[in-house]
Parts: sequence; structure tokens; C-alpha cells
Amino acid sequence: MTDSWWLKPCKAIDAAAHEQALARQQQLTKPAGSLGQLEALALQLAGLQGQVKPSVDRLWIAIFAGDHGVVAEGVSAFPQEVTGQMLHNFVTGGAAISVLARQLDAQLEVVDLGTVTPSLDLPGVRHLNIGAGTANFVDGPAMTRAQGQLALQAGRDSVSRALDSDAQLFIGGEMGIGNTTAASALACALLDCPVSDLTGPGTGLNATGVSHKVAVIERALAVHAAQRGDALQTLFNLGGFEMAALVGAYLACAQEGIVVLVDGFICSVAALMAVRLNPGCREWLVFGHRGAEPGHRHVLHSLDARPLLELGLRLGEGSGAALAVPLLRLACALHGQMATFAEASVADRPA
Amino acid sequence: MTDSWWLKPCKAIDAAAHEQALARQQQLTKPAGSLGQLEALALQLAGLQGQVKPSVDRLWIAIFAGDHGVVAEGVSAFPQEVTGQMLHNFVTGGAAISVLARQLDAQLEVVDLGTVTPSLDLPGVRHLNIGAGTANFVDGPAMTRAQGQLALQAGRDSVSRALDSDAQLFIGGEMGIGNTTAASALACALLDCPVSDLTGPGTGLNATGVSHKVAVIERALAVHAAQRGDALQTLFNLGGFEMAALVGAYLACAQEGIVVLVDGFICSVAALMAVRLNPGCREWLVFGHRGAEPGHRHVLHSLDARPLLELGLRLGEGSGAALAVPLLRLACALHGQMATFAEASVADRPA
Repeated sequence: MTDSWWLKPCKAIDAAAHEQALARQQQLTKPAGSLGQLEALALQLAGLQGQVKPSVDRLWIAIFAGDHGVVAEGVSAFPQEVTGQMLHNFVTGGAAISVLARQLDAQLEVVDLGTVTPSLDLPGVRHLNIGAGTANFVDGPAMTRAQGQLALQAGRDSVSRALDSDAQLFIGGEMGIGNTTAASALACALLDCPVSDLTGPGTGLNATGVSHKVAVIERALAVHAAQRGDALQTLFNLGGFEMAALVGAYLACAQEGIVVLVDGFICSVAALMAVRLNPGCREWLVFGHRGAEPGHRHVLHSLDARPLLELGLRLGEGSGAALAVPLLRLACALHGQMATFAEASVADRPA
Repeated sequence: MTDSWWLKPCKAIDAAAHEQALARQQQLTKPAGSLGQLEALALQLAGLQGQVKPSVDRLWIAIFAGDHGVVAEGVSAFPQEVTGQMLHNFVTGGAAISVLARQLDAQLEVVDLGTVTPSLDLPGVRHLNIGAGTANFVDGPAMTRAQGQLALQAGRDSVSRALDSDAQLFIGGEMGIGNTTAASALACALLDCPVSDLTGPGTGLNATGVSHKVAVIERALAVHAAQRGDALQTLFNLGGFEMAALVGAYLACAQEGIVVLVDGFICSVAALMAVRLNPGCREWLVFGHRGAEPGHRHVLHSLDARPLLELGLRLGEGSGAALAVPLLRLACALHGQMATFAEASVADRPA
């Protein structure tokens, strides 16, 4: 765990499979390019999976939850107990992601990295107790290095279980009252952007609330300014346990060869952190949606990411990525099952 | 058939079901509004279906095909025989829409309104033989009133079969080499727009091809200018058999109470025509995607439509609407299956 596993090389793309998939696609009975973004997606998946006809039927969804010390500054519209209450809702099937996981025939696992609710012990939840939430990062680092490495490893462990169940697609979701504040702070530190560009209402702040949130983040950035050049330390200074777990999960997926479907703002900031730590992971990341949180656009742009959906979502939990899963599956089905011009005796356009 | 059935009133929205659905939605365990466009969609479906928990599991897809006399002007990148060849591909399962229909567990029917291929007799295709394609609308009306009314009725007949199979959602698709030219001409006549704003590459013209297409449409609009004020006659002057069938289908759906999911540019122009003929149908139309054809944006704007997807598609066949079906189904599942704050013992935000 102290061997910096997250820096090890990511799995290479299979260029031959990508090329064969491209040759197949050019023969399918449709005008070239007429399936738009779904064509590039099928080719990307072919290269990643090393299959001319890729498939993402087996889906693993891991929800990482954690509480945030910065909530003491009054940055969230919801009380902090909601993190723990929602853990219960995830495993009893009533949360949005629970419904989506059922509909998509996904394996859903819920990992509690550390919440403020004492001695939470919910059947079906993995309680890791890394801490009673993070520390308030306005006063010092959100987590210790030891805590941070445990959280990274928790993400990697989830990927390990996903591998054991032969998953072809990994979605990481998050839950944590206050975590848009941590994500905005982290994104500002990584992108060197004005705080107001990357800070929004989260789950429901009004304009005054957003201004206050900006001021809190500016204080935190000043406190941790000296370590900005060290991405990993910045994650530990300003992130949350669930965000470190997401970073660990994304990197482990890229190393082990599981395609990642990235969710909204918080997950995209974790993806940005993962790419900063180990750039080779970028190719393994597919982006599910562009959310309502204004900073999401900047983070996606910095990753050169073009998400599949834009529906004004701002829920988290992996829900936006889950909603994009049918598009990946249908892209694979179209690529794998359509007839070629020759098979269907259809005239192609004159060369 | 000569009783102008298409002008009869559309089914009214169930305001009580809409209101009850709204009350339910406000209690679900998520921040209010956090499911974005999917929340409004679930409410719309509730009002249309008169169900607090709507459902679109049973899907009917009808592909309407027809050839276009205007192809004689050299406006398409593909040879005209492809219309008939693709009919075969639709029913043998190799076309994009065939693959999507299978994946979505939809009923797919293929209606040939009239193509240039003589005596086509394909098992599984309904051949209506309204004409050997339309006439070249640069020289005169694309179809006679009698042909036009047969095509409208063909759309209505498909909806009748959809009703018999208890369909909850109707997608009309289209196939017809040259039909973006007809759709652009029709849209120009209805929207009184410069032709160049509404004319694009279709399935693959280059810039010279598009300029030529613009010139052809300008000639056609001049020929039929005197009848522009008569929407139905304009449909018969400039449209195609498959487009008239779509108009008839959309209007019959709105009258009978089946939700419509509208596909791309050509279908959106048919939707615009349907709304001009009988404005009450607008509420029954959900828009699946914004396609690559540049005129689509204008047509959607004129309908105040906000499509669910934007993936750069330009295939037709109903494929873009089909790709949006999982979003409708997941919106219904979320709305119907999520727990309320009370059920899950989760704290809502302070009032």
C-alpha cells in the first residue's frame, strides 16, 4: 500500500482490435459517420477491450461515501446526517442509483469510507471507518497521508471485486454532504482557476450560499497554497475520502483493463486528479454526462472530454453515468449486429 | 378518409394525474430538481397517460419508406435503389433500427408507401403502392390529394395496429433516398426561412452538392409559392409519402392517446406539419434527439422542443428516437420506484 501502486503503468490499448473494428464499421449498412458519437465510442471500447465486437453487459457500480469536515463552515443545504441515512437508502433499494442499478442489471456495492454517524453498521454496506469524516480543510489537511492511502486502496479493492465478478464496465458513484465544496476546491487547485468559475449551488444553495462557499474555498486554497504542486498531497489536503477512493478506483481500472464510465462534477474532478497522477489512465475513461454544476464544464474541457448526455442532472450517486449505460450497450449492439453492405446486398454510395 | 379525420381534437392531458405525480416527485429521496430533464419528462408522461406512475415498456416502431421524384435533380449521395434494398435489410434484422428494436424489445413494422423498385414484394413489409415514388416537385405537386390522403391514413392505420398491441410509446421512422431535400423544402415553406438555413448534407453531400440542393429547393418553393398558406396542400406539394404517413401517425397518436417519441430532422419536420394542422398534438410529442443536419436546430426551436440526446446522428430510420427510449424508461422507473423521504427515513433539507 506504500508502494505507490497508483503510479504503475496503465494497460495499453489494443491497436489491432481498434483497426479491425474500424474496418468493420466502415462496411455497416448506414452512411459513414451517421451514428455520430456512438461510432467513435464503439471503436474506443473495441480498442480498450481488445475485441472487434466489444460488450459492456456486465456492469459494476460502487458508491463511495464519506463525510466532510468543511460542512462546519455552513456550505451545504442538507444536514450532514443525510450521508449515513442515504447509505441505508442505497442498500434498501430506494435511492436513484439503487433503482438504476436494478434496471441496468448491475452489481451495486456501497462502501462507507467514514461518516459522522457513530458506529454505523448497516447490512450490505462495507464500513471502513477511515475517520469520522474528513477534518475541516480550512484549518489543515482534510486527511492524513495514511488515511488518504487507505481511501485510494479502498477504490482499488472495489475494482478487484469487480474483476472477480468479470465486470466489463465500472461506475464509481459518490455520496457525501458537502462534497461539491471539496471537489471545487480540488479543481481550483489543479486547474488554477478563479474559485467563482468552479463553484456552484451543489444540491441546492442560493446565491448567498454560493458566495459563502466561494469565500470558504478561497481561505482553504490559501492555507494549502504551498503544496499545490504536489497533486497527491493536494488530494489529501482538500479532497474527501470518497474522492480519494474514486481516484484509486479509476487508476486501478486503467491498470487492470476495465472501462470506466465517469459520472458528474465530483467524479470528473476525481478523474482529473487520476489523470494528473497517472496520465495513461485517460484513455480508459468514458464520460457519461455534463451536469448542472457550472464547474463541471471547465473540468470536462480540461480533460478534453465529450460526455454522452446533458440532462441538467445534479444528483451524484453515479446516476448520470448509469443513465448513459444504455447508450454504450446500444453502441456495442449496433456495431456488433448490424449487417454489412455485402451481407445485406445494399448498394454503398459510389466511391 | 375524406372526412378530414386529422383535424379532430387530440386527447386531453390528465391534469389530476400530473398533479399527483408532481406531489410524489417532490417527496422522492433526492434534492429537488436533481434529476433535471428526467423529472419534467416523468411528469409529462404521467399527465399524458393519466397515471401517477407512467410506463413506456411497450414500444411500437413503424418505419415508413417512400421514394422521391426530386432525386432526378441529383440531390442525394446514394442511388435510389437503396430505399428498396433497405426495406429488405429492415425486415431481415441487419439495419440499425432492426438492431435497436430487438435490444429495446419493440414491435417493428415496415411500411412501404411506394418506391421506384417495381413489384417489390418482401415478406414482412407492408407494400401499399401509393405510387412509384413521388413526382419531381420541381415540376409540379409531389403527390395528388388522393395519394396524400392515402399516406396520411397509412400512418393512422399503423397507430391503430399499435393500439391493438397495447403500445405505450410510438416511434415513427423513415427511409427514402432524397428525403432530406423534401423535408428541407417543407420546413422552408412552413417557417418562411432562407433555404440555406434549412438545407444540409443529408446522408453525405459535399459543399457543392449542398449548394445544388439549395438551388433545387428554391426552384420548387417558387413553383408552389401560391399555395404556401395551405399547410396540407404544401405537404402534398413538397413532402414525401413517408412524411405524410408520419404526419398521419403523429396526429392519430395524439387523438388516441399514445405518446410519440419523435426522431430526427425529417420526423421533426413531419411533427411541425402535424402541429400546424392540429396544434393540440404538440403535447403528445417528446423529442428524442438533435441530429447533425443543420436545419434540425431551427425546426426544433420553432416547436419549442428540447430533445433528450445530441450525439451527432444523421441516419434516420427512427434510430435517434430509439436510442432515447432507455431514458424514458429509466425516468419512469426512477419516478415510480424511488423511496420517499418518509419511507426511507432520510432528512429533507430544512424548509
